[in-house]
Amino acid sequence: MADAAHPLALACGRSLTSVEVEFETYGELSPGRDNAIFIAPALSGGAHCAGWDATAEERGRAWEATRPGWWDDCVGPGKAFDTRRYFVVCASLLGGCYGTTGPADADPETGRPYGQRFPIVTVGDWVEVEARLMDHLGIDTLLAVAGGSLGGQQAIEWALRFPDRVRGCIPLAASSSLPPMGIALNVVAREAILNDPHFRGGDYYDGPRPDGGLGTARMLGHISYLSAMSLERKFGRRLQDRSDLSWSLAPDFQVESYLHHQAQSFARRFDANSYLAITRAMDYYDAADHGGGDLVEAVRRATCRWLVLAFESDWLYPPEECEKLARALEAAERPVRYVRVPSTYGHDAFLLEVAAVTDLVREFLAGLQGS
Amino acid sequence: MADAAHPLALACGRSLTSVEVEFETYGELSPGRDNAIFIAPALSGGAHCAGWDATAEERGRAWEATRPGWWDDCVGPGKAFDTRRYFVVCASLLGGCYGTTGPADADPETGRPYGQRFPIVTVGDWVEVEARLMDHLGIDTLLAVAGGSLGGQQAIEWALRFPDRVRGCIPLAASSSLPPMGIALNVVAREAILNDPHFRGGDYYDGPRPDGGLGTARMLGHISYLSAMSLERKFGRRLQDRSDLSWSLAPDFQVESYLHHQAQSFARRFDANSYLAITRAMDYYDAADHGGGDLVEAVRRATCRWLVLAFESDWLYPPEECEKLARALEAAERPVRYVRVPSTYGHDAFLLEVAAVTDLVREFLAGLQGS
Repeated sequence: MADAAHPLALACGRSLTSVEVEFETYGELSPGRDNAIFIAPALSGGAHCAGWDATAEERGRAWEATRPGWWDDCVGPGKAFDTRRYFVVCASLLGGCYGTTGPADADPETGRPYGQRFPIVTVGDWVEVEARLMDHLGIDTLLAVAGGSLGGQQAIEWALRFPDRVRGCIPLAASSSLPPMGIALNVVAREAILNDPHFRGGDYYDGPRPDGGLGTARMLGHISYLSAMSLERKFGRRLQDRSDLSWSLAPDFQVESYLHHQAQSFARRFDANSYLAITRAMDYYDAADHGGGDLVEAVRRATCRWLVLAFESDWLYPPEECEKLARALEAAERPVRYVRVPSTYGHDAFLLEVAAVTDLVREFLAGLQGS
Repeated sequence: MADAAHPLALACGRSLTSVEVEFETYGELSPGRDNAIFIAPALSGGAHCAGWDATAEERGRAWEATRPGWWDDCVGPGKAFDTRRYFVVCASLLGGCYGTTGPADADPETGRPYGQRFPIVTVGDWVEVEARLMDHLGIDTLLAVAGGSLGGQQAIEWALRFPDRVRGCIPLAASSSLPPMGIALNVVAREAILNDPHFRGGDYYDGPRPDGGLGTARMLGHISYLSAMSLERKFGRRLQDRSDLSWSLAPDFQVESYLHHQAQSFARRFDANSYLAITRAMDYYDAADHGGGDLVEAVRRATCRWLVLAFESDWLYPPEECEKLARALEAAERPVRYVRVPSTYGHDAFLLEVAAVTDLVREFLAGLQGS
């Protein structure tokens, strides 16, 4: 989506002269090209949001062959984003490690992986790339853009950056900016990576990887996606495959084993430099920047309809924060439906409260098509 | 408090033949020896709970000279634990790094620091040591035992392990066991330490220390002591000493700078092996073990009066968990006053809600002396 003749100018002031984007599509684009929906991924998701991918193994991503796309519960025939009616597009993030250009790719200037020389990217940069992808696909206007978490922030950004290209915006479990609790957790996650003995300033691609640090970061991320209630229900203080304590630092409790497992499986499929890049984009995003710091002024730019979904027990993007976006839209007299979905799943609720999300999204999308 | 003739048998099955305990006392023991209160420290506190210590520097702990004891707001003349009326004792934890025997001390068998060969210790072991200290001081019965967080769990353990030696028990911001959220956070903290390039299996005393990992662990601990509200109030998304983003991973936000500062100052004054030991004790403690897993049966052992204080926004030892202890005491027909103190400070509230804590503790202690 960028080459030497069409460089991608980034918010940080630098530009990229070589950007490739991995994307997937589902369903068919209507003759009037008016049924396209862009699904924006969160931190750990990629372009593969739905269905089973038979080519995953040959593309070197065996783990993708073991499970369906990350939002398969909501994207597919008859689902919330009904691929019999809508043309769904999803793309991997710039700076990530799922096919779109990122720190593990070769810097054209040196021929060696960027590592930490990859520029700091922003949610705004991602949406610029996604807009170029839409140009490439011949889609001028999106019926809707939707996403949860960091994907929800991309949805917000789409509506503010390209108001003429979005008819409906669906941020789930996302606020206009990350509260300081989230920034604080990101600092800890990054420290775990930066302090890993194998990190070596980000130039680890020719040797052992900083899997310990990346795994630790993932453990913490995972905790922030759950709630105290879901941890209690899933694990409590139960021991894992043992009847007594080990009297050691080895995993005794189910929650410990679970986190270790999550850490190991994530380290196999993710790149530490990408984790650093994406969490920084998460810290930096503030939709109010479009209004000089005033969120009401910022959202006045939008012309679409909004469905803002918050989830009761989410403590990463808490409902109170999501509601601020909805209130700002109301203050700017923009059409918004705000729903605080009851849930005990924490931040992950946007993926797990399938019935509620399906009903709300389906109704919202039908309303857009009718309008 | 232990020597070859009087070894300390630990819950893990091992025993220590050399245990020294650092303790401090405040006020005077009454002729009837009936006014002693033991204050149990939390993870990062030591024996020095009140006042200014003029000898700190010469004892190699310069940082203790820069501030008063960790509970100075509540321990002293005219304060909640009024040292004009009560004889207050505080002691550093076994396995810690504030003078009481711990992993940095020489193993008498080898002459070299224990490191990770130091046995796993428990809240029960701490209370055994504390009871030996009371024997040493000639104190048979404590008027009260009090503490916040892990100190509160020691208070609970005192009441259940030595019911005849405790007249009043005051656990603050402590439940009968750590919920899985806390275990999960401890796992992440320990991983950060274990993965530090300087950790070297815990044998780092003759070289660089695992300060990066210990600092990361402390950052996370610190976050768990605050609340989303206190983070919002203290820092919001404000930048630190700059008007624009750095477009790097360097600390931009106030909350980042604050956490880095906390990490560095903690690493200077704490030992990573102790951090591992104490968080494991925190994971392992479950007061219900005294009742074969039944908390009501467990607390039936206690004969003292109870003041159980929980703090509204605490998410490490949440009020709902503290309330379970109070309800168990009621079910066992034990005299308990349970108060959920309104606060937005999070877990740290037990140190910060000085006015509320002072009123409640003072009244409770007066009632004990009158009885």
